[in-house]
Amino acid sequence: MTPFCALIDWGTSSFRLWLVDRQGTVLAESRSDEGMMQSSQTGFASVLENHMGKLGAPAGLPVVISGMAGARQGWVEAPYVDIPAPLDGLTALAVRVPHEPRDVHILPGMAQNRADAADVMRGEETQLAGIAATQPDGLVCMPGTHCKWVSLEGGHVTGMSSFMTGEIFAVVGQHSILKHALEPQARFDADHPTFRAAASRALAQPAQAMAMLFPIRAGQLLGFEGRDDGAPHLSGVLIGAEIAAARELYGAGRAALVASQRLNALYKPVMEEAGFSVDLIDGEEAVRAGLVAAARQLHPVSGE
Amino acid sequence: MTPFCALIDWGTSSFRLWLVDRQGTVLAESRSDEGMMQSSQTGFASVLENHMGKLGAPAGLPVVISGMAGARQGWVEAPYVDIPAPLDGLTALAVRVPHEPRDVHILPGMAQNRADAADVMRGEETQLAGIAATQPDGLVCMPGTHCKWVSLEGGHVTGMSSFMTGEIFAVVGQHSILKHALEPQARFDADHPTFRAAASRALAQPAQAMAMLFPIRAGQLLGFEGRDDGAPHLSGVLIGAEIAAARELYGAGRAALVASQRLNALYKPVMEEAGFSVDLIDGEEAVRAGLVAAARQLHPVSGE
Repeated sequence: MTPFCALIDWGTSSFRLWLVDRQGTVLAESRSDEGMMQSSQTGFASVLENHMGKLGAPAGLPVVISGMAGARQGWVEAPYVDIPAPLDGLTALAVRVPHEPRDVHILPGMAQNRADAADVMRGEETQLAGIAATQPDGLVCMPGTHCKWVSLEGGHVTGMSSFMTGEIFAVVGQHSILKHALEPQARFDADHPTFRAAASRALAQPAQAMAMLFPIRAGQLLGFEGRDDGAPHLSGVLIGAEIAAARELYGAGRAALVASQRLNALYKPVMEEAGFSVDLIDGEEAVRAGLVAAARQLHPVSGE
Repeated sequence: MTPFCALIDWGTSSFRLWLVDRQGTVLAESRSDEGMMQSSQTGFASVLENHMGKLGAPAGLPVVISGMAGARQGWVEAPYVDIPAPLDGLTALAVRVPHEPRDVHILPGMAQNRADAADVMRGEETQLAGIAATQPDGLVCMPGTHCKWVSLEGGHVTGMSSFMTGEIFAVVGQHSILKHALEPQARFDADHPTFRAAASRALAQPAQAMAMLFPIRAGQLLGFEGRDDGAPHLSGVLIGAEIAAARELYGAGRAALVASQRLNALYKPVMEEAGFSVDLIDGEEAVRAGLVAAARQLHPVSGE
C-alpha cells in the first residue's frame, strides 16, 4: 500500500518515524537515538533521508515533524503558539523546511507567555492534539525529563506547568552527596514501600519537599534505610511534590496520564492517592494521531 | 606567648588551624584547602604536622579537631551524639586519635535519630557549642552546601533540619537544562530584584517550588529575563523555599544566622521578610569558641 505521509517525532535524544496511510494506520516505522542533539552534529537532512531510504519511502513523499527539530538549535526554528490556543490550529504556524527531495513541515511549539509562570513545550502539543480529538477537556499529565501538566478546555490549551522532575532525579542522584545513597539507574516498582511512603509524605507536605532530600543520605548513615532505598526514596519525594503542586494549580479531578509504561506505573498510584481519577494514554499513539491530523490539513485531498 | 592548644576546623574541603591561649585568643593561624577529601589521599597526620611545623607549634602541644575528620571517610571515625543532647557534653564522646607526636582528639557529630526526619551534622555542633555559651535558646540557621537549621533549648540541641540548598544550586546550575540559563559562579547582590522577587514567591508558595525551576529557562526563551537573571532567580527560589519550610517547622522568631558574609547577606533579608528577627554571628568565632571550651574540658588545669 502506498503511504500518504511520513510522520516524525523528533525529540532531544530520540527519533521516531512512521509511514502511515491517510487514516493513520502505520505501514512501516524506523527509530533511533538520532535526536536533535546528535542530528545537529550529523545533519538533519541526512538523518531524515537515511531513515526514509531504509523504509523505501517513495520519492516526493511529504513529511510532518513535531518536537525539538523545531527548536533554535534544531533544523529550522518553528515559532511558539501563545496559549490559550486551539490544538487543531497548529498547522497555521508550521514552518516549511527548505529540503530539495520532498515537502517537509515542522509543527510549532506552544508557550505560556506569562512573566510569573513562563513555560514552553515542543512535541507535547502534538500529543495533546491527538488526545484532544477525543478528550477536548480536562487535565493532562505528561511525565518525563521535564514533566508537563496541561489544562484543556474545548480543545484549547489554557494552561501549562513544567516540572524538572526527571532531570532533577538524574542530576541530584549523579552529582550531589546523594550519589552515595542511590544508584540513579536502579529499577524499582511503584509498590516499593519506600517509594510510596516518600511520595505520600511529599504529597501531604509539599512545602517541606526541600527538607526531604538530605534525610535520604542521613537515613542510610543512621541505619534506617539501605542503598536500595535511595532511588525509590528520591523519586517518591520528587513525584509526590510535583503531583501536590499540580493539584494546587489545577485541582484534583479526571486526568489523562501520558508516558512510558514505567512512568505511568509510578505516577498513577500517587495521582490516585492525591485524588485524581486517571486515564492511561499511550503517548506514541497520541503523537501519531496529532501528526496525522496535521498532515491531513497540510495535504488535503479535494472534498476532504 | 606559649600556646595552650591547637584548634582545628577540618571540613570536607577546607582546613583551618588556630594556636590559642587558654582564653581562646588567637596566637597564630594556618589554613588551606586540605579538607577531608584531599587529606584522605595525602594522610591526615602529615597534613596536621605540616601546619603545626609551619607555625612553630611546641612539641607535645595538644590538638582538638571538629568536623569531617571524624567522618567514616575521615581520620578516625567519631560517633554521633543523639539529640536532644547538651552542647557542653561533646567531649564525653570525643575520640582519641593514635598519633605519636601529640595528644589529638576529634569531637563527635550530632544525629537526629528519627526515621521520618533522619539528620546528621559534623562541625556545626561545635559552632553551636560556641553560640550556646551566650545564646542557649532559639533557632540557628547555618547556610552553606548543606544548610542546617537547629533549635536550641537551654543549651541543648532539640531539633535539626538540613537543606541541600547550596549543593542543589550547584548541580542543577551546572548539569541540568538550567546550565543554559545561568552562570553558577555569577556574583549578585541580595538586593538583585530577580533574587528578591523569586525568593518572595517561593516564600509565599513553597509548595510550588518545584514548579518554579523550569520557568527560569522558559522565561529567558520568551524574553522576560536575561542570562544575568538566571543565578539570582534559581538562588531566590531555593533560599525562599528553604526559609519557608524552616519557618513551618520551627516557627518564625529570633534566629541566629551563621555563615560567610555573602551567604549572610543573601539569607538575612529573606528571613526578615519571612518574619524572623535575625542576629548575625561570625561562624569562625563560633567554632573557635566551641573548640576552646572543649579543649579546656579535655585539658583542665587544677582548680579550673
